[in-house]
Amino acid sequence: MSDEATIYRDKPLRVYLDDAASGKPAPGGGSVSACAGALGAGLVSMVCNLTIGKEKFAGVEEALTDVVARSEALRARLEELLQEDTTAYNAVLVGYRLPKDSPEQQTARSAHIQAALKVAANVPLEIARVALDVCRLARTAADLGNPAAVTDAAIGAILGEGAAQGAALNVLINLGTIKDEAYVGACRAELEGLLAEAVGLRAEVMAITHTKL
Amino acid sequence: MSDEATIYRDKPLRVYLDDAASGKPAPGGGSVSACAGALGAGLVSMVCNLTIGKEKFAGVEEALTDVVARSEALRARLEELLQEDTTAYNAVLVGYRLPKDSPEQQTARSAHIQAALKVAANVPLEIARVALDVCRLARTAADLGNPAAVTDAAIGAILGEGAAQGAALNVLINLGTIKDEAYVGACRAELEGLLAEAVGLRAEVMAITHTKL
Repeated sequence: MSDEATIYRDKPLRVYLDDAASGKPAPGGGSVSACAGALGAGLVSMVCNLTIGKEKFAGVEEALTDVVARSEALRARLEELLQEDTTAYNAVLVGYRLPKDSPEQQTARSAHIQAALKVAANVPLEIARVALDVCRLARTAADLGNPAAVTDAAIGAILGEGAAQGAALNVLINLGTIKDEAYVGACRAELEGLLAEAVGLRAEVMAITHTKL
Repeated sequence: MSDEATIYRDKPLRVYLDDAASGKPAPGGGSVSACAGALGAGLVSMVCNLTIGKEKFAGVEEALTDVVARSEALRARLEELLQEDTTAYNAVLVGYRLPKDSPEQQTARSAHIQAALKVAANVPLEIARVALDVCRLARTAADLGNPAAVTDAAIGAILGEGAAQGAALNVLINLGTIKDEAYVGACRAELEGLLAEAVGLRAEVMAITHTKL
């Protein structure tokens, strides 16, 4: 854990890949899931950008202008979350290092850890939510976008679903140590519905894509 | 199409994401699939790096030392393919711009295009093959690696499978315009087997992961 967090967005792509492969605490699977989601959101934007302004797609221009505004917002959010996830667990690690000699210290340490674990779980939960939105937009892009770019819409859905699955696992690993049962139950229920929708959207987008290949 | 290709590995992560989202010809879905696969390979390496050198995992140290050597080689290859895919289609575009005024010119143009299309299809085919290998190594990492990092092995498999699926779509889109039926048939058969194995591995790794969460 360094004092100055590396701002990965501004570093060479190879630095992000190298650090993910290393034994360093960050970036881990949560951040990498956000990165995959950002790549997927980018491909949805690409489909829109390869459609807008072309005479023969004038009928869908308004719809895809709306989609690209939203996919670019999702991409910006995932780029933030890619970074946030690299530090989300720091507060948990700080908590584990707190003294636990007296009962008071033990209570304070446990409260710190429990609060930090929820914050750490909320980051991948948000990644999963945004990644699902990527899948939803990929569905529209596959339907309405330039058919020459339909595979890019499909890869957008594939990476959106993968990002949601990966982020969900990072929520679940944190839930195992969170004692607030209402919070744990709500997270599990939300993830279940969210992943089912993402899986369904990926399958729909793949089916649309195969009819246009 | 620029004369000097951007070497994305050395550019800030945001440049790769921004260019993928733009209407520029590259990077497209093939390159982005290779990038997702490289991220997956990196996570497999991370699991190994979080296992090797720890007393309690001494029994799997030799196996995971072998895995990390292989996952780092796959990552290096996918980082190359991420770049190669950005230029693989250039030769096809050059072909389409060749003159077609005489029958001789038409024949030469068609031969150029057909050869370039196979080269362009071979790049994502290679991405899919390497991505499948990422899934295979993720399976071993999930089985043998530090259970605290099992979700990273799972995300490695998720991104490996996604990379294989995305790359396969980019092969298929090229196959539609390739006239060599033997080549097309061989590619389709290889992709079918490859994707079935990747899907199976992702499901296995997810199942292993859920038992360890």
